[in-house]
Amino acid sequence: MTGFEIRNEDYADRVRGSFASQGFMAALGARLTRVAPGSVEIQVPFNKELTQQHGFFHGGVIGAIADTAGGYASYTLMGGSDSVLTIEYKLNFMAPADGATLISRGRVLRPGRRVTVCQSDVFVVRDGAEKLCATMLGTFMILPNMADEPAAQG
Amino acid sequence: MTGFEIRNEDYADRVRGSFASQGFMAALGARLTRVAPGSVEIQVPFNKELTQQHGFFHGGVIGAIADTAGGYASYTLMGGSDSVLTIEYKLNFMAPADGATLISRGRVLRPGRRVTVCQSDVFVVRDGAEKLCATMLGTFMILPNMADEPAAQG
Amino acid sequence: MTGFEIRNEDYADRVRGSFASQGFMAALGARLTRVAPGSVEIQVPFNKELTQQHGFFHGGVIGAIADTAGGYASYTLMGGSDSVLTIEYKLNFMAPADGATLISRGRVLRPGRRVTVCQSDVFVVRDGAEKLCATMLGTFMILPNMADEPAAQG
Amino acid sequence: MTGFEIRNEDYADRVRGSFASQGFMAALGARLTRVAPGSVEIQVPFNKELTQQHGFFHGGVIGAIADTAGGYASYTLMGGSDSVLTIEYKLNFMAPADGATLISRGRVLRPGRRVTVCQSDVFVVRDGAEKLCATMLGTFMILPNMADEPAAQG
Repeated sequence: MTGFEIRNEDYADRVRGSFASQGFMAALGARLTRVAPGSVEIQVPFNKELTQQHGFFHGGVIGAIADTAGGYASYTLMGGSDSVLTIEYKLNFMAPADGATLISRGRVLRPGRRVTVCQSDVFVVRDGAEKLCATMLGTFMILPNMADEPAAQG
Repeated sequence: MTGFEIRNEDYADRVRGSFASQGFMAALGARLTRVAPGSVEIQVPFNKELTQQHGFFHGGVIGAIADTAGGYASYTLMGGSDSVLTIEYKLNFMAPADGATLISRGRVLRPGRRVTVCQSDVFVVRDGAEKLCATMLGTFMILPNMADEPAAQG
Repeated sequence: MTGFEIRNEDYADRVRGSFASQGFMAALGARLTRVAPGSVEIQVPFNKELTQQHGFFHGGVIGAIADTAGGYASYTLMGGSDSVLTIEYKLNFMAPADGATLISRGRVLRPGRRVTVCQSDVFVVRDGAEKLCATMLGTFMILPNMADEPAAQG
Repeated sequence: MTGFEIRNEDYADRVRGSFASQGFMAALGARLTRVAPGSVEIQVPFNKELTQQHGFFHGGVIGAIADTAGGYASYTLMGGSDSVLTIEYKLNFMAPADGATLISRGRVLRPGRRVTVCQSDVFVVRDGAEKLCATMLGTFMILPNMADEPAAQG
């Protein structure tokens, strides 16, 4: 019961299929841990290849899964022939991402016919406790009647 | 001749050293191709591990090198005992990143005692021509008398 | 019970005094309708001087009270000798601001020693119902031991 | 010679007409001082009704003319039957707006069929010298075949 209208019953399969085709998500070790109408969760276990100079998760990993969770949260509410594109996002870092797992939870704030606004909160899990380490506010465009394919942006 | 005041003659070595200690930049195959007062360039060659679902560079790679180029551009103007932290950034995607190399050029718009504002333009190189594919506007904090070390944020 | 630490018992008086000294808030007809630890509400009644070309509240009014509510939400948690400065904000418009009253509710997402992250939601009231028309994510700097006075930024 | 394609020869008249119908721009005392393909300039003379608590131009005035200059810069490149909507913007404050006149210069960074990305720089003029006090990066949507009229957003 999210209040969101579902326009495509296969939304979860479409999200999972698109996620699986992103080489970068695989390289990060990212897993799609939840797909629901208007929300998506992505988790990344710690790995030395994902660090910044202090040995914590790099901000680039945080940004990547914040953006991706927001985009797929948008995608859950789209029609079966639509594609999604990130227009822009803004990310605030709030605490060092020092922990064993990074979790990004994206949710739709405002669905639209042309653009959808989403927020993603990114948490780091340390000793079993979650800590908010970043938040993202972003805008995603719906490309109607476009396969999940490259398109001239804009 | 940039008009920026240099507060640490070793700025280029410090940037190169810090960059080299980021596991994530190595994992992306990123190279620091220019360090100058108030500006930094980073390049990433194409690789299937860096793709989104259409086979182009993933937005997460773009965000990672936009943020990193902005942060190190700030760092070039800091004192020898300062550390730098990304407070936040905003990234607009402008064209698909379809090409052989991604180039991020970060520059300081406004240096400050406490915070520095930077812009990074990200280009994709295809058939030898550069195309602007994203731009970032971000805010970086100076942590005085702090080794380039983990710190409680904020 | 907000979980926020109050560092200055007079926070509400300080916020009200600073708000009252802003000529622009008076010119907008803005009223401070709530001040609590970590949150502030501002209301603006409709007026033809506040419109864009379609006769709705102008985005500039929305931005002004979103930023101001975020800044004063930060200010409620500061020490008695601190001052506050907006570093930056990002504002997403989500629906036309067509109504009789505009309400901005700012709240602290993450208080900090140096910077505080806030979110403001802006609602328009029409026929007694509130509709979310914009959301702001912003960063505010604490200037310690500085009267609520002009300061070199950064 | 801007490199931008003009799709409507009457662009300057349309911008001037739309600007003139904004009650808020009139209330600010804002004047449209330049309209060219892909760029627009707005000026606001100082007035006590436009101040924050230190007697400088309020950030809300800066945001209003940054957004408006960006939106009209977009509008100069649109077709004769298109309308424009601000999707979102991000504004960084860089120096106190202490001066006699505020000048916002908006320019198109990337025109698009659906969305246009613009940047506005805001300067304050004091003793005849301009100082950069803020910069905005924003996204504007084109509404085709829509009078410059209210529209359901998104």
